[in-house]
Amino acid sequence: MEKFNFRTQVLIRHLQQTTATATAAAISRSPCLSYAPPETSEPPSPFDVSSMRKLMDGHNLVDRDWVFNLMIQSKLFNPKMRGGKVFVVPDYNQSMEQQREITMKRIQYLLDHGVFDGWLTGRGFESEMRKLALLEVIEIFDHSLAIKIGVHFFLWGGAIQFFGTKRHHDKWLSATENYLIKGCFSMTELGHGSNVRGIETVTTYDSKSGEFVINTPCESAQKYWIGGAANHATHTVVFSQLNVDGKNEGVHAFITQIRDADGNICPNIRIADCGHKIGLNGVDNGRIWFDNVRIPRENLLNSVADVSPDGKYLSAIKDPDQRFGAFMAPLTSGRVTIAASAVYSAKISLAIAIRYSLTRRAFSITPDSAEVLLLDYPSHQHRLLPLLAKTYAMSFAANHLKLLYVKRTPQLIKTLHVVSSSFKAILTWHNMRTLQECREACGGQGLKTENRIGQLKGEFDVQSTFEGDNNVLMQQVSKALLGEYLAAKKRNKPFKDLGLDHMNKSCPTIPLQLTASTVRSVQFQNDILCLRERDLLNHFAAQVSKYQAQGESKESAVIASYRLAEDLGRAFSDRAIFQTFVEAENNVTDVPLKNILSVLRSMYVLVTLDEDAAFLRYGYLTVENAETVRKEVANLCSEMRPHALALVTSFGIPDAFLSPIAFDWIAANSWSPEQD
Amino acid sequence: MEKFNFRTQVLIRHLQQTTATATAAAISRSPCLSYAPPETSEPPSPFDVSSMRKLMDGHNLVDRDWVFNLMIQSKLFNPKMRGGKVFVVPDYNQSMEQQREITMKRIQYLLDHGVFDGWLTGRGFESEMRKLALLEVIEIFDHSLAIKIGVHFFLWGGAIQFFGTKRHHDKWLSATENYLIKGCFSMTELGHGSNVRGIETVTTYDSKSGEFVINTPCESAQKYWIGGAANHATHTVVFSQLNVDGKNEGVHAFITQIRDADGNICPNIRIADCGHKIGLNGVDNGRIWFDNVRIPRENLLNSVADVSPDGKYLSAIKDPDQRFGAFMAPLTSGRVTIAASAVYSAKISLAIAIRYSLTRRAFSITPDSAEVLLLDYPSHQHRLLPLLAKTYAMSFAANHLKLLYVKRTPQLIKTLHVVSSSFKAILTWHNMRTLQECREACGGQGLKTENRIGQLKGEFDVQSTFEGDNNVLMQQVSKALLGEYLAAKKRNKPFKDLGLDHMNKSCPTIPLQLTASTVRSVQFQNDILCLRERDLLNHFAAQVSKYQAQGESKESAVIASYRLAEDLGRAFSDRAIFQTFVEAENNVTDVPLKNILSVLRSMYVLVTLDEDAAFLRYGYLTVENAETVRKEVANLCSEMRPHALALVTSFGIPDAFLSPIAFDWIAANSWSPEQD
Repeated sequence: MEKFNFRTQVLIRHLQQTTATATAAAISRSPCLSYAPPETSEPPSPFDVSSMRKLMDGHNLVDRDWVFNLMIQSKLFNPKMRGGKVFVVPDYNQSMEQQREITMKRIQYLLDHGVFDGWLTGRGFESEMRKLALLEVIEIFDHSLAIKIGVHFFLWGGAIQFFGTKRHHDKWLSATENYLIKGCFSMTELGHGSNVRGIETVTTYDSKSGEFVINTPCESAQKYWIGGAANHATHTVVFSQLNVDGKNEGVHAFITQIRDADGNICPNIRIADCGHKIGLNGVDNGRIWFDNVRIPRENLLNSVADVSPDGKYLSAIKDPDQRFGAFMAPLTSGRVTIAASAVYSAKISLAIAIRYSLTRRAFSITPDSAEVLLLDYPSHQHRLLPLLAKTYAMSFAANHLKLLYVKRTPQLIKTLHVVSSSFKAILTWHNMRTLQECREACGGQGLKTENRIGQLKGEFDVQSTFEGDNNVLMQQVSKALLGEYLAAKKRNKPFKDLGLDHMNKSCPTIPLQLTASTVRSVQFQNDILCLRERDLLNHFAAQVSKYQAQGESKESAVIASYRLAEDLGRAFSDRAIFQTFVEAENNVTDVPLKNILSVLRSMYVLVTLDEDAAFLRYGYLTVENAETVRKEVANLCSEMRPHALALVTSFGIPDAFLSPIAFDWIAANSWSPEQD
Repeated sequence: MEKFNFRTQVLIRHLQQTTATATAAAISRSPCLSYAPPETSEPPSPFDVSSMRKLMDGHNLVDRDWVFNLMIQSKLFNPKMRGGKVFVVPDYNQSMEQQREITMKRIQYLLDHGVFDGWLTGRGFESEMRKLALLEVIEIFDHSLAIKIGVHFFLWGGAIQFFGTKRHHDKWLSATENYLIKGCFSMTELGHGSNVRGIETVTTYDSKSGEFVINTPCESAQKYWIGGAANHATHTVVFSQLNVDGKNEGVHAFITQIRDADGNICPNIRIADCGHKIGLNGVDNGRIWFDNVRIPRENLLNSVADVSPDGKYLSAIKDPDQRFGAFMAPLTSGRVTIAASAVYSAKISLAIAIRYSLTRRAFSITPDSAEVLLLDYPSHQHRLLPLLAKTYAMSFAANHLKLLYVKRTPQLIKTLHVVSSSFKAILTWHNMRTLQECREACGGQGLKTENRIGQLKGEFDVQSTFEGDNNVLMQQVSKALLGEYLAAKKRNKPFKDLGLDHMNKSCPTIPLQLTASTVRSVQFQNDILCLRERDLLNHFAAQVSKYQAQGESKESAVIASYRLAEDLGRAFSDRAIFQTFVEAENNVTDVPLKNILSVLRSMYVLVTLDEDAAFLRYGYLTVENAETVRKEVANLCSEMRPHALALVTSFGIPDAFLSPIAFDWIAANSWSPEQD
C-alpha cells in the first residue's frame, strides 16, 4: 500500500515535471543538456581497433574475454544497472570483513569454473602466459581479488616451486592449485620490510628430534602484512634466520601449517589482524607469532641449501650473499605482475576519464555558443593525452618484461632483476600519477567509488612500496649500472648487458637547432635518451669515485650521490621503455597502425623531455631546443585528439568494467526510486 | 569460562615466549629492535617550540586546546589505546551510513559544549578568528566533521548572512547557530559544477500568488553533491536562474524547506543519495529535484537584487556580469577555509612521517653496524624536509589569507579573489603531494587507516576540485594578472594591486655566478621570484596579443596560451607565498626563532627553484646557477635535519591526533588479545 502510494506520487510528480519542463523550456535561455555518445560524435578511427587491442594485450585474448564474461555473468561480482547498462564493480561500502568474505567466494567461483587450471601444475610458455593474462583480467575487476589469488599462487605457490624440491612439489602444488590448502607468505616483519636480510625470526635445528623450531623472539619480529593470514590461510612459508649448531646461516624458507582444515589456529601460533586499510580490504592481512613451533626437517625448502638429519648445513652456494640472492631471485614474479597490473589500472582510468571528457562540457567561449567539450580544451588535452601515450609505452614495456620473465635463463637473471626493478617502480608511479590526474579531470565524479578512478588510487597505492620500495628499487638499478660501468672499465671490455652497449659507440650529438621533424625521428629520440643515460652514468661513477677518494666507503658514497642516482635510474628506465616501444613498432606492418604508433612514441619521448628538467640541467637540450620540444608536444596533443576515443577503446576493457560516467551519465543519474 | 581459558593460554604462551627469547638471544646475531623515543635521541631544540607554535597557529591557542580536549574526552570521538597512549581517529571501517550518523552525533556534542556559540550571531574580528580556529581544530580530527559543519555554517549560514537581508538574518541565523534547523547549499548540478552561470534550475515569479516557483527542468539540472541533503538537512539555499516576466535575470539564491522537523521530505521535493565516495563518507551528499516548489517572495535572498510583489525585477547592479560576481564573492570563505585546512592536513602527515623516520631504521652501511635511521639517509631527508619547509611557508600564506578575508574591504575584493584562488589551488595540491610522499615514506604503515596519512589522501582529495577546480582557479589568476597588465599599459599607470608593484621598478638582475650566501639572501630570493613573474606576465600578454592579432578572440587566445598561463599562475603564487613568509619573519624578534625561519625560508625558495624547470627554461637560472641552488638544497637538508623533530612538534597537534606509528609502534603492535 505504501509502495503504491509512493509510485503514484512519483507518477504525479513526473506529470507535473513534464508540464514544468515545457513551461521552463519556453522561457529558458538554453535547452537542457543531452548526452551524445562519443561513438556518434567522434570521427571514425583510421586504424583497426581490434588489431591495436591485440598488440596491446599481446596474448591470450580469447582466454581474457572468457574470464571477463565469467565475471559479468555472476551475481557475486556485484552487477549494477546504471543508465541501461550493467557495471560490475565491488561494493566498497562493505566493511573489511564483508569484503574479505566476498573475495573468498569470488575465488571459489573462479576455481569452480576452471580459471586456475594448470596455474601450478602446468608447465611451459603457454601455461605461464595464460596465467599472467588471467590474473590481469581479474585485477581489472578488483585488485584485492587479484592480490589474494597472487599471494596464494605466486608467492606461496611460487616459493614451493622455486625454493622447494620434488618432495615439496609433489605434496603441495596440486593441493594449492585446487585450494585444498590455502597458502600465505611470511616474509615481512614489523621491524623489517625492504631489508629482508635483517629479519629477526629465528629457526633452530633440533637434531635430537629431527625438527626445526621456529620462534618469534621479540615483538619487532612478528610477521606483518601477511596476506591471507588474518582469516583464511592454512599454511605459510616462513622466512627466518636459520641457526644450525649455534651458527647463523642466514635467511631460509620453511613450510608451516597455521590453521587446521576447520580454520582453527594451530597450537603455538598466534595470529592478529593488520586492520583496516585505505584499499585492498578484500585481502586479510595478518600478523603471526611463532612460539617454539616444531616442523619436520623436510619442511625446509631446500633447493638452495639443506640441513642433514644429523644437523650439518649443506649448500652448493658457499657465499652467503649469493645464497641470499638465490632466495630472492624468484620473487621477481611479484614485480612483473605488479608492473603489468599498474598499466591496466592506468588504462581503466584513462578510458573512463577520456570518454567522460568527450561527453562533458564546461563554459562557453562566447555568451551564446554551446559549452566546450572538456577534451577540446588544449589544457585538458595536455593533462590526459601525454599520459595516454605514456600508457601505451608502458604497456609495451610490461609486455617486454613478461616475456623476459617467462623466457628467463640464468644468463638473464641480472637483466631481469634490474629491468623488473626499474619497470615496477616507473610503471606503478605512472599509474598513481595517471589516476590522480584522471580523478581531477572527472571532477567530483572521480570520487564516487562506483566510478572506479578514485577508489583505484587507494587500491593501488600499495604498489609503490610493496615487493620492494620504489625508491630502494631505483637505487638498486643505479647501483647495478655502476657495477657494469666499473666492471667494463676495470677489464677494459665493452659494455654488454642492461642495454648499455650504446656506451661502446661514440657519444651521440644533438643538433644545435632541432626541427619538428628531427624531434619526431627514432634516431634523435634514441640518441638523446642514450646521451642522458651515458652522461649521467659517467657523472655518477665520477662522483662516487670522488667521495671514495675523500675516504668514504663505496656504500656511503652511493648514498651521498642519491640525486645523480635518481636521475640515472630514470634515464635508464626511460631509455629501456623507449626501446620496447620501438621493438613493438618494428613488428607492426599495418600502415594506419604504424602511423598512430609513431605519434604515440613521439609523444612519449617528447613529453619525457619536456617534463624532466634533467635535459636542461645537464645541457642535453638548449633552451631553444626545449622550446621546440614543448611546441611539438602541443602539436602532438592536437594530432592525438581525434584518435583519443579509438586509443582507449583499443585497451579492450569491456564496458561493464568501466563506469557510469564513461557512458550516458545523465541517464545513469536519472531519478529512479528503485535504484539502490 | 571461555575467556578464562583464553587468558590462561595467553599466559602460557607468554612464558614460553620469554624462554624462547632467552634461547634465541643467546644464538642470535643481533639483539631485537627496540624503540627509542625521538625526544630522548634527538638534540634539544635551539628555538622555543611553544613560541613557534604560537607563530604557526597565529591565534586562539587557548580555544584550540579547549576543543582538542573536548574531543579527547568523549567516547564519541572513538578513542583507542595503542602502546599505552590514547588516539582519537574515526573508524573508517564503518559504512557510509554509520559514518554519517556518528558525524551528526559529534556535531550535537560540540553544540552542547558551546563550540558553535557566536558562529553566526557573533560579530567582529575576534568572533571570526575564533570560528576559523575552531574549524581548523575540528578538521584535524576529521574532514567529514569539518565539512558537514562548514556546509551548515559557512555555506548555508554564509549565504543567509551575505545574500540575505535583515528579514533573513532575524529568522535564520540564530536558529542555524543552535541547529534548530539544518541547512545545506544547492548550487552545483549534475551538468554544471565550476561553471555556475550555466546551471539549469529555473525559478519563475508568480505575481498572482506572490510566490516563486522552483523547477528542475531536466535530469542534468538535478542538484548534485549537496552536502547534508541525503539525510539531515531541513532547509537549503537553491541557486537558480531567475525568470521574471519571461526574462532571465541570471543566477539568484532562494531559501526552501526540504524536510520537516521529523525528517520527512517535503512535498514536491525529491531527494536521492550521491552514494559511497573515497572519502568524506561522514558527509551525506545528496541530489535534489524541485517539482514546482512554491516559496514565498520573501525567500529570495535579496541583498543584490529583489522582485517587487507585483513582479518588477530590481537591482542596484545593472550589469549582469557584476551582479553574478557579487553573488559569488562571499563564497571566498570556502576557499579560505579549504586552504587553511589543507595546511593542517599536511602538518598531520609530516608530523607522523618525520617522527616515524626518527625511530625506524633500515639497512646497515657495514655488515655489523646498526641499521640507519630513515631520516639519516640524505635521500629520505630530501623527500620530507623540503615539504616541511614548504608547509611552514604555506602556513604563513594561510594565516595571511585568513586575515585578508576577515579584514576585507570593498577595495580588497579583487585581491582577495585572486589570492584565495591561488592559495586554495597551491595549498591543496601541496597537501596531496605531501600526503603521498609521507605515505610512501612510512611504507605499508602509511596505508593503515589508524595511521591516518593514507586515509587523509581520500578525505582531502576533493579539495583540488571543489569550490572551484584548481586548474580553473589558476587560469583565473593568470587572467586577472593579464587584466592588471592591460589596464596599466592602457592607462600608462603604475601597477598597484595584486602585489605587482615590483613591475614598476627596473627589472632585477641575477648575478652570473651565484654563491651559497647569495642564494640565501632575501634580496636574491625576492628578485628571482619577481623576475619570473614579471617576465612570464610579459610573455603571456605578448602571446595573447599575438593570437588576437591573428584573429582569435581574447578568450580563445588565453585558452591557447594555457602553458604560459599555468607557469604564470605558479609564478604569482610562489612570489605571493614567499612574501607572506618574509612578512611573518620580519615580525619575529627572537633570534633562535629568526635563525630557523631563515633556513626554512631559504629551503622553501631554493627547492622551488630546483623543482620548477621554468627557471632554466626561461633563462632565469643558468645551468651553473641551477647547480649551485641544487647543492644548497642538500646543505639545507643537513641543516634542517637536527631540527626536524622540533619543527613538527611546533605544529601543536596533540599526540592523540597523530597516530601509533608516530610513537612506540613496537608497543602499539605488541600481542594483546584484548585489542579490538
